[in-house]
Amino acid sequence: MSDINKVVLAYSGGLDTSVIVKWLQETYNCEVVTFTADIGQGEEVEPARAKAKAMGVKEIYIEDLREEFVRDYVYPMFRANTLYEGEYLLGTSIARPLIAKRLVEIAEETGADAISHGATGKGNDQVRFELGAYALAPGIQVIAPWREWDLNSREKLMQFCEDHQIPVDFAGKKKKSPYSMDANLLHISYEGGNLEDPWWEPEEDMWRWSVSPEAAPDAPTYITLTYEKGDIVAIDGERLSPADVLSKLNKLAGDNGIGRLDIVENRYVGMKSRGCYETPGGTIMLPAHRAIESLTLDRESAHLKDSVMPKYAELIYNGYWWSPERLALQKLIDATQDNVNGDVRMKLYKGNATVVGRQSDNDSLFDASIATFEDDAGAYDQKDAEGFIKLNALRLRIAAKNGRKLS
Amino acid sequence: MSDINKVVLAYSGGLDTSVIVKWLQETYNCEVVTFTADIGQGEEVEPARAKAKAMGVKEIYIEDLREEFVRDYVYPMFRANTLYEGEYLLGTSIARPLIAKRLVEIAEETGADAISHGATGKGNDQVRFELGAYALAPGIQVIAPWREWDLNSREKLMQFCEDHQIPVDFAGKKKKSPYSMDANLLHISYEGGNLEDPWWEPEEDMWRWSVSPEAAPDAPTYITLTYEKGDIVAIDGERLSPADVLSKLNKLAGDNGIGRLDIVENRYVGMKSRGCYETPGGTIMLPAHRAIESLTLDRESAHLKDSVMPKYAELIYNGYWWSPERLALQKLIDATQDNVNGDVRMKLYKGNATVVGRQSDNDSLFDASIATFEDDAGAYDQKDAEGFIKLNALRLRIAAKNGRKLS
Amino acid sequence: MSDINKVVLAYSGGLDTSVIVKWLQETYNCEVVTFTADIGQGEEVEPARAKAKAMGVKEIYIEDLREEFVRDYVYPMFRANTLYEGEYLLGTSIARPLIAKRLVEIAEETGADAISHGATGKGNDQVRFELGAYALAPGIQVIAPWREWDLNSREKLMQFCEDHQIPVDFAGKKKKSPYSMDANLLHISYEGGNLEDPWWEPEEDMWRWSVSPEAAPDAPTYITLTYEKGDIVAIDGERLSPADVLSKLNKLAGDNGIGRLDIVENRYVGMKSRGCYETPGGTIMLPAHRAIESLTLDRESAHLKDSVMPKYAELIYNGYWWSPERLALQKLIDATQDNVNGDVRMKLYKGNATVVGRQSDNDSLFDASIATFEDDAGAYDQKDAEGFIKLNALRLRIAAKNGRKLS
Amino acid sequence: MSDINKVVLAYSGGLDTSVIVKWLQETYNCEVVTFTADIGQGEEVEPARAKAKAMGVKEIYIEDLREEFVRDYVYPMFRANTLYEGEYLLGTSIARPLIAKRLVEIAEETGADAISHGATGKGNDQVRFELGAYALAPGIQVIAPWREWDLNSREKLMQFCEDHQIPVDFAGKKKKSPYSMDANLLHISYEGGNLEDPWWEPEEDMWRWSVSPEAAPDAPTYITLTYEKGDIVAIDGERLSPADVLSKLNKLAGDNGIGRLDIVENRYVGMKSRGCYETPGGTIMLPAHRAIESLTLDRESAHLKDSVMPKYAELIYNGYWWSPERLALQKLIDATQDNVNGDVRMKLYKGNATVVGRQSDNDSLFDASIATFEDDAGAYDQKDAEGFIKLNALRLRIAAKNGRKLS
Repeated sequence: MSDINKVVLAYSGGLDTSVIVKWLQETYNCEVVTFTADIGQGEEVEPARAKAKAMGVKEIYIEDLREEFVRDYVYPMFRANTLYEGEYLLGTSIARPLIAKRLVEIAEETGADAISHGATGKGNDQVRFELGAYALAPGIQVIAPWREWDLNSREKLMQFCEDHQIPVDFAGKKKKSPYSMDANLLHISYEGGNLEDPWWEPEEDMWRWSVSPEAAPDAPTYITLTYEKGDIVAIDGERLSPADVLSKLNKLAGDNGIGRLDIVENRYVGMKSRGCYETPGGTIMLPAHRAIESLTLDRESAHLKDSVMPKYAELIYNGYWWSPERLALQKLIDATQDNVNGDVRMKLYKGNATVVGRQSDNDSLFDASIATFEDDAGAYDQKDAEGFIKLNALRLRIAAKNGRKLS
Repeated sequence: MSDINKVVLAYSGGLDTSVIVKWLQETYNCEVVTFTADIGQGEEVEPARAKAKAMGVKEIYIEDLREEFVRDYVYPMFRANTLYEGEYLLGTSIARPLIAKRLVEIAEETGADAISHGATGKGNDQVRFELGAYALAPGIQVIAPWREWDLNSREKLMQFCEDHQIPVDFAGKKKKSPYSMDANLLHISYEGGNLEDPWWEPEEDMWRWSVSPEAAPDAPTYITLTYEKGDIVAIDGERLSPADVLSKLNKLAGDNGIGRLDIVENRYVGMKSRGCYETPGGTIMLPAHRAIESLTLDRESAHLKDSVMPKYAELIYNGYWWSPERLALQKLIDATQDNVNGDVRMKLYKGNATVVGRQSDNDSLFDASIATFEDDAGAYDQKDAEGFIKLNALRLRIAAKNGRKLS
Repeated sequence: MSDINKVVLAYSGGLDTSVIVKWLQETYNCEVVTFTADIGQGEEVEPARAKAKAMGVKEIYIEDLREEFVRDYVYPMFRANTLYEGEYLLGTSIARPLIAKRLVEIAEETGADAISHGATGKGNDQVRFELGAYALAPGIQVIAPWREWDLNSREKLMQFCEDHQIPVDFAGKKKKSPYSMDANLLHISYEGGNLEDPWWEPEEDMWRWSVSPEAAPDAPTYITLTYEKGDIVAIDGERLSPADVLSKLNKLAGDNGIGRLDIVENRYVGMKSRGCYETPGGTIMLPAHRAIESLTLDRESAHLKDSVMPKYAELIYNGYWWSPERLALQKLIDATQDNVNGDVRMKLYKGNATVVGRQSDNDSLFDASIATFEDDAGAYDQKDAEGFIKLNALRLRIAAKNGRKLS
Repeated sequence: MSDINKVVLAYSGGLDTSVIVKWLQETYNCEVVTFTADIGQGEEVEPARAKAKAMGVKEIYIEDLREEFVRDYVYPMFRANTLYEGEYLLGTSIARPLIAKRLVEIAEETGADAISHGATGKGNDQVRFELGAYALAPGIQVIAPWREWDLNSREKLMQFCEDHQIPVDFAGKKKKSPYSMDANLLHISYEGGNLEDPWWEPEEDMWRWSVSPEAAPDAPTYITLTYEKGDIVAIDGERLSPADVLSKLNKLAGDNGIGRLDIVENRYVGMKSRGCYETPGGTIMLPAHRAIESLTLDRESAHLKDSVMPKYAELIYNGYWWSPERLALQKLIDATQDNVNGDVRMKLYKGNATVVGRQSDNDSLFDASIATFEDDAGAYDQKDAEGFIKLNALRLRIAAKNGRKLS
């Protein structure tokens, strides 16, 4: 362990990662660089500075990455209508590659030879951090304390804190959740505790970012989202930066009881786990993006996207954002978004985010003169359908004549 | 046109198909056999008998196909978590293959040489009827009056009725909708009229099977669905037939404002069209099925299903239910459902169908002793994760060492 | 038919398309513009000028498109290792989009309102020409004489020639093949005649571009192909243009009995058909491209390409080169080729095109120090494999413990 | 290491696995059960008995698994036209699941608590053995000596032999290859040594099962293969068991210089490796199976198979034969083979295995009356093609009218 001189730690300022600072200093006899990012988790990041300093950290990075996060990670992912296992909006997964990237960049800047993080050995996050780090800095070393140390019970951890004068109310006075939580501008997640019983319905006060549908206003809220190349650029006509778009949607959705999800998912490391997620803004963004695409995107492009989406979602979930295959898929996806321009009108009401209108001045492929049930003045020759059907049926007829049975 | 002696018509008893009866008799100088099926559209089918008789039809088939419809078509489709274009539950599409099958079976029984239907030349339904018919009876002839005749305006149609003594209130006294509608036990659809403007929000009284979320009860309804091999066999412990399951779910969902969808979709014949759909029960069934699978289905089986689902949905939408490729995919899907057994608890509330619990006595693959955040007593060795990550990262590291950039 | 003033015809200079010139002039009373392209079919194109002129054609386009054909169509397709139905190198399919593009460009230049071609109503080529034309010029009209006229027997055609003073030896004195043939720089195809019996082995003298393996030299020929970004830029160190690369490979392969294929394929219009193809150069290019990729392309990028290749091939075969979905797939494919640089050594011998070596100075991902069976000096920690296997097995073990059977 | 009482070893009778016998006895102080299978590797298995006995092994399993191997593993795999990375016939991969299955079955029979194998920590085979074992016997322990011991050089291994009186000419007097080889009835593989330079062409005498194309007979050999449900049941009219079919094809192909492959492949554990393979019979079987399918299999079924094949191949290569997803895919594949019946005629000549004819008495979907270039007597209405093309082009035209560019 003597070959580690300096390590960059993804440092939240909380108790666990504070313990890691000490443990790294002691175990590896190395310098620790802390990196604390505001990715919209809704907590102050500045207090991490004093804490790190108090533990003797000399190089302290505190950064606001919210715009970069939404612009370069969340938005590209939503262009693909991405859902993992049909339901999960990948709120945790999508934040990890950005952290991994900054960790190794800071390691290079500071001459560190390793990075470290506070993710456990059972979860997906260790994989996402480390695959990203290795992909961007192949010579980097990774220290994953939770896989190495023996502080694997709350008691041992507390003892370690006492031994090393780490104040146990480090994380502040805020109400302690019984759940393991992770938050960023896209979502907040809950795991562990009672959720380990998949039959158990979470109690109302677990949820933090949204009111319940029951508690939401009795009148709906209508909003209009403006899209350019598949990304939201304005809400109700007001142009906003990516992070501001997502912040505002989180507020609107959360106020209307929108964005809760309760699932059992399959982790990359092999087990099933229960997760509850609040993704208020994202829960509006998914159907809204599909709606603007429904008007402006060619059918076969849309179907091609749908056919590769599960793979794309799996890559992000499994931690392969920084991989050539994700990039190649992104090229395909982005190539379809040039004309995904226009407006979507959404109704928000007690948990429901409903598309009620979509329009595009220049890029609509919806041609009412063809689709109409009224006289179309020759725009479409119904007789063409006969040949279309006949030739599509030809192989089926030949097989049936051959005596093939369809059962 | 002299080679048609007898034609089996999919006859609703309504005005349009009544016109077709007359038009076929006159144009082809042939006998018409009418086939009217109860597939849960919510209208009496028996009145069709007298109407057909009045027009001189001698062979009249009136059948209750609700159980067959749900058991052999709806249920298999839901095993695949099928959605067309990410959103549409395929309510219209899935009823067509059954009608096509009965049409050609009746043609064989009655010695008819052709079938006929009332679908227009612009839509998907003509394709679904005809592909199905050709696949099952390769020598059958198809007469699609809307592609052939010149009664392509309301006035001409009315004139034809007058000329042939067809009472124009044939369809009964019920409120006339301004929309083109289609219904079966799975859903009701609305097209045309104001909906041809995709920015226009449908008025509340268009919807027929559900109350609005606003009008739904202020207290949630909880239900428990019991699954066997991927199919619902009981609601709240009461064993029900497939059609009874769906009927009951329709009622429960409709009462709670659940099941409305408003989309622009891509038709197989090439244009985009606006459709509004009410699929009350189906909107419960989709997340519920995913929930029971989340507990009982292997990860890679689930992902494999997800990867072929868009293709499977496209096949059904496009009318290829009766095709060898749909059957081959069904084999794959059904092979995954043997252990999809257990219960799902759902909360129904003002438009939301939310999974709040899932359990399986014998088939749960959720292993709390492994997934736990607590001490797992050695069920999972966290150190394994290092090797897992290292080998998964190997190709990425080699590439990065080679100087490859990921951007 | 009075609304056609001018039509651009894909004119080979042969008998059939000469008949079409006359038939168009007469039937549509319109001006005909002829377009004759050298795409490497191995026949003089210049003689078409005099023939067209003799029939009164005023606007005559004769173009050498060989470089454009290989550079913009053949090369991009080979980047994807494209095979239709596992075997067919798409020699005919890939030439059609270029012809379609020039037809509509010439139509625009000359103010023509229609295009025309000599493809029959049973084949894929009509589809490829017309889809391409419609995609690039949505308002164009298409005249497909073989679907319209009644000259559907050799006798009627000859009578038409006699009536219109078209010399029946128009196509020249060269030996008449009993097969329907099509050629370009990538391949030559044979259909019809005896080939309509799929059990019948084609006689040796059907093949035109290659000697038989039996007649090929008894000594092998070795060549080295140099790749840049997935495209061949040099043979045996000599830099060549795309068309010159393909010409030279055709010669080398043909001389060594390489490139024959005899298959039954599935046409887009619904029937199976027997086709024999000679694709000499292409038969070298496919394994060579795979070989250079095997050294320089990341595993998952390669597998991703393989997973979309059948779809990509189908698009080209079916005539959707000019479609947004083909373009989106091309973006994905091209994004993987930046590092596909290096040399492949091939042995050509009596029908076999065998890879015997591959190297890349800067882009090889083959790391002998890791892969070696010898001591690797710590480049790879074999113990990592245990964790890798254990976690990959976890879901399988949980299922087996649950009593799941794998059979 | 005290918890292992008995271990079943995949024992070849060669030096390495003999060392493992001793090493296991000594290291784990446990009983060793040897399992030696004839899967067509072309070496006597019976001598393994005396060797095992001499080392004190009491339970010795020696089995002829050739028929089971071909019938239950090779044949199902060939139904899918399986190729890994476009070229590799998976000869090594497909034998592993059978060995894994027998290992755990014997463990159960003999009350052993572990299995062991002689695969290294760098290769795919360890993964295949162990995933299979864990999937079938979730509680089994696995001992992989090459990942554990320190005998990682030839010298240490020799010293171990000397120390434990293991005769170093254990493997017999046969010529020692400089390559790492693996053989079964489907193929023989070569790795390591000079092959670690991917530019190096293997010397002629490396290959063992085939003559070179140059040395093959100057006259071709013709054979006819008869298929039932996708499997070969007879050669030249003689019904043969699966293993006899493959043996005979190996002989025919090997004699004609057929079946050599030289590739760089991507291992599951993350690195690229060079492999040379001789798969004589398999190299005939692949195009032959495609040929009989080309006549008897529906187009869309064939394309569906092609679209999932890369995934299926990857599963087998990576060691997931014993997984629910492979089984689900197998259901899909097998569902397409019911009508894959008939004969394929192949020409074997100096490295080439060429299809020259295919026929099926009852299951041919090739309809010459439709496909013909001659008059088809109305079997196909060429005018249908116009509607087919028009509707397929509709979305492209609408997009082009909207001003979309295709580039």
